[in-house]
Amino acid sequence: MNNQAWIDLIRDIPDFPTPGVVFKDITPLIGSPGGFAAVVHDLATKVPADIDVVVGMEARGFIFGAPVALSLGTGFVPVRKPGKLPGEVITTEYELEYGTNSLSVHRDAIPDGSRVLIVDDVLATGGTIAATARLIKELGATLVAVAVVLELDFLKGRQFLSEQGIEDVIALTHG
Amino acid sequence: MNNQAWIDLIRDIPDFPTPGVVFKDITPLIGSPGGFAAVVHDLATKVPADIDVVVGMEARGFIFGAPVALSLGTGFVPVRKPGKLPGEVITTEYELEYGTNSLSVHRDAIPDGSRVLIVDDVLATGGTIAATARLIKELGATLVAVAVVLELDFLKGRQFLSEQGIEDVIALTHG
Repeated sequence: MNNQAWIDLIRDIPDFPTPGVVFKDITPLIGSPGGFAAVVHDLATKVPADIDVVVGMEARGFIFGAPVALSLGTGFVPVRKPGKLPGEVITTEYELEYGTNSLSVHRDAIPDGSRVLIVDDVLATGGTIAATARLIKELGATLVAVAVVLELDFLKGRQFLSEQGIEDVIALTHG
Repeated sequence: MNNQAWIDLIRDIPDFPTPGVVFKDITPLIGSPGGFAAVVHDLATKVPADIDVVVGMEARGFIFGAPVALSLGTGFVPVRKPGKLPGEVITTEYELEYGTNSLSVHRDAIPDGSRVLIVDDVLATGGTIAATARLIKELGATLVAVAVVLELDFLKGRQFLSEQGIEDVIALTHG
């Protein structure tokens, strides 16, 4: 599947998860053999060279991050909600519209000095990506780039990430 | 990485999630470039031919299922907890030691008549796999096989699945 024809496989679901929100649903994309292969290929070929580790956030980030790691020949490190990872973890909080969420990573998962790529499906407000970047930094590794399938420009996540010092954000498409 | 040397990358975490339980942690395996590539290769080469769709369950099932789908040249369908999938879903309940859990799949995700492979990290009691099999059947598709990285023999999940009519269970290793 060429020329990003896979973009048409991302569908709009109105009023999910709440009234007035249009949810970008990537399940038809990953359900298409040609579409899924093409989007993983596009992600893997647009990121910087010399990545040591790919990090993906629970749960949709696993669907794209794990294949990109295999494509780049790196390991994959899951970032998860508290209580899910069985080993010793470090945890960070981030703010939501109402309340806070937390994300954890195994303390021994990312070697000190590693060059790290974050992969996720959608860049929305950037809150989960910024929190993951803090975990990576706390482990002594370097966040080289963030790669997402779709960036929702109107939520200004790129601007928020820039304010956190995260400048290299690769989005395959925009919505 | 040959001869299933990756098996040594699965580590035991005692007393997780509760005292007395030894948790099999696959994060060192997926964090190893050679280990992760080898286990996905082993999964993809041991399953039956002519698979149309790979199904994986939230969240660790995504880490193995998505790469296996790409390796087989099929689409990937996520089975998720209720409230996570934005489109029209079907849902099934399954029993836990205390209480019940539910799993959902998009109604349009698996075409009628498809030949389906379930991929997961660990076969424990078999409850989530059996629930996923019911969803696949309700959509008019055929569950051809179940492939897992690790089977915990002492929990007798294989026997439970057999009682549900699920006979083709491929486990790369046992613990």
